Amino acid sequence: MLGWRLKEFSHPYNSISSAKAIMLLDQYFHTLLPIIEAELVSAVAQANGPGLSELHSMLSYAMGWEGPGAGPETRGKRIRPLLVLLTTAAAGGEWRVSLPAAAAVELIHNFSLIHDDIEDQSTHRRGRPTIWKQWSIAHATNAGDALFALAHLELLRLAETLPYPRVIQAARLLNQTSLHLTQGQYLDLAYEQQLDLTEADYWPMIAGKTSALLAACTELGAIGACATDETRQAYRQFGVSLGLAFQVQDDTLGIWGDSALTGKSTDSDLVTGKKTLPVLYGLSKKRAFYQRWLRGAISPSEAPSIANLLAEEGAKEFCLHQVERLTNQALAAFTTAQPQGEAAAALVDLANLLLHRKS
Amino acid sequence: MLGWRLKEFSHPYNSISSAKAIMLLDQYFHTLLPIIEAELVSAVAQANGPGLSELHSMLSYAMGWEGPGAGPETRGKRIRPLLVLLTTAAAGGEWRVSLPAAAAVELIHNFSLIHDDIEDQSTHRRGRPTIWKQWSIAHATNAGDALFALAHLELLRLAETLPYPRVIQAARLLNQTSLHLTQGQYLDLAYEQQLDLTEADYWPMIAGKTSALLAACTELGAIGACATDETRQAYRQFGVSLGLAFQVQDDTLGIWGDSALTGKSTDSDLVTGKKTLPVLYGLSKKRAFYQRWLRGAISPSEAPSIANLLAEEGAKEFCLHQVERLTNQALAAFTTAQPQGEAAAALVDLANLLLHRKS
Repeated sequence: MLGWRLKEFSHPYNSISSAKAIMLLDQYFHTLLPIIEAELVSAVAQANGPGLSELHSMLSYAMGWEGPGAGPETRGKRIRPLLVLLTTAAAGGEWRVSLPAAAAVELIHNFSLIHDDIEDQSTHRRGRPTIWKQWSIAHATNAGDALFALAHLELLRLAETLPYPRVIQAARLLNQTSLHLTQGQYLDLAYEQQLDLTEADYWPMIAGKTSALLAACTELGAIGACATDETRQAYRQFGVSLGLAFQVQDDTLGIWGDSALTGKSTDSDLVTGKKTLPVLYGLSKKRAFYQRWLRGAISPSEAPSIANLLAEEGAKEFCLHQVERLTNQALAAFTTAQPQGEAAAALVDLANLLLHRKS
Repeated sequence: MLGWRLKEFSHPYNSISSAKAIMLLDQYFHTLLPIIEAELVSAVAQANGPGLSELHSMLSYAMGWEGPGAGPETRGKRIRPLLVLLTTAAAGGEWRVSLPAAAAVELIHNFSLIHDDIEDQSTHRRGRPTIWKQWSIAHATNAGDALFALAHLELLRLAETLPYPRVIQAARLLNQTSLHLTQGQYLDLAYEQQLDLTEADYWPMIAGKTSALLAACTELGAIGACATDETRQAYRQFGVSLGLAFQVQDDTLGIWGDSALTGKSTDSDLVTGKKTLPVLYGLSKKRAFYQRWLRGAISPSEAPSIANLLAEEGAKEFCLHQVERLTNQALAAFTTAQPQGEAAAALVDLANLLLHRKS
């Protein structure tokens, strides 16, 4: 019900079957990921120099290239750079032009993870100690700043292939996005101390924390294709809605997903105490869930029954409805953008992958 | 002996007396500082929005506009933006064009102070609690990131008045400078754990920590005047050497200056244990100072006698010689740049002010 169905599309690639689309996406992953990775390696190499190999190692560790457990598993899916490149291709451009933008968003993503881990006092990420835990808060703060600067330097490499006004537009966008990330993170930190929150407080937080960077991916992709303002805005909206849908889906799985309810209830967002959409919904109702939340931390063994309680108060239905609404919004924007060719089909599949639906 | 003497100059403003130059600088301060401040206020305002007033307050506190003790004293001298504007004027440009660049470097400077205070665990700056102390490490990390993004956004406002290739050149420069800051800071943090250091280890550290941003000021100023590559490079070198001279002067005063030797010996860099140039010089000699340093923290009451010991081993003479060498280097670059008019004279005075020499 919540997934995207290719049959809903009325574009040229409508004739491509779902199985074909997956194959296409696999091809894109196969072809593009090594190229993205090489671009990232060369961007991060700029932090190196005499006496600076440890700084470079911290960044390489953060990117999943060095240290124990280095490898594809610790690198994340690199969905963001792929989203940039596929959008450029779907908007009629040459994906290679957008390679610096693709690498830049991935560097910004990893910069924000390094600092978020400090701010949230997270000791582990993708099964490995976080940078601040492995080195120190001082080094992690500084290494994050280095990655931030590298991201923006990398973006400016667009000037080698794109007209200057587009490059400046892209640079402004990436900085506005970075600012938006900090605004979302500020709200997240501020909410920790607050109980009188409603679901209305949720949207500006995830608009900054999650949606801004995905919107930057699709908008940068459109800029790389020198798309018209209308098309660029449509791709941006596609990214905005996709990002919001993704986060709400993630929040829903964080309470009612398999790993939250069975065996690994320690992973439940109810146990970690995160102010996700279902929790904010429950708090705003001020009923039994709210009363339980007031009494303090929820243990892993309690998580399944409190997840049930929250569902009974309507939170799950509310969230699933939001995912559907936002997915439809994303689809509508995607249709408006009139994406072209095989890249468009692959983009749909990438969106599905992001929404945890392997279709 | 160490100051700059206007009489050494052989340029048009040679006819301007030193007293006149100070008057000029005062005029520039009087005229330009309110304009710079207004630009900074409007740049920082972009972090504000619904629910974000506390984030905006953190930044306003960092900029010296809000909170206890807010005012000119807590704002610093705003020497960097003035350096940008005066360089543009001296290079034959219109200072107003460089206003976004001037504001941007000041925002970068303040961003780096917020993060440095976390990294150095400094509880006070300019007589007030630091951001992390007043709020939290989480909020200070995030607020610093916001200021970083605002700085780069502000710089891109150059596109309103400068040709695009110049804007991209400026944006690249500010990001390279930001990266260089983190490289210098990395070395500073790494040196804390090391004893086998010599004065050779000093230069790359302060090239990043101090000199990079001052070099960016003068280079951005030249870019704002659309100067030739040769002139831009000369202004850059002026900033590089000025920055190094300033830091070595500061390090020298940090051990043998009035406040380090008398009364407030708690301010002595010997007491705080900073790896400044005199200390690195002393460590590399491996004589009595080195032996004393090995034995642990130096108390305020010991500071004057150890400062004497260090001077006897040649550290003071060495540092004063370095300041003279670097000041001459700065002067030579300044001469090569062929600065013009009253702004050139004011620039000399600003350099003197930076070198703690009110001339």
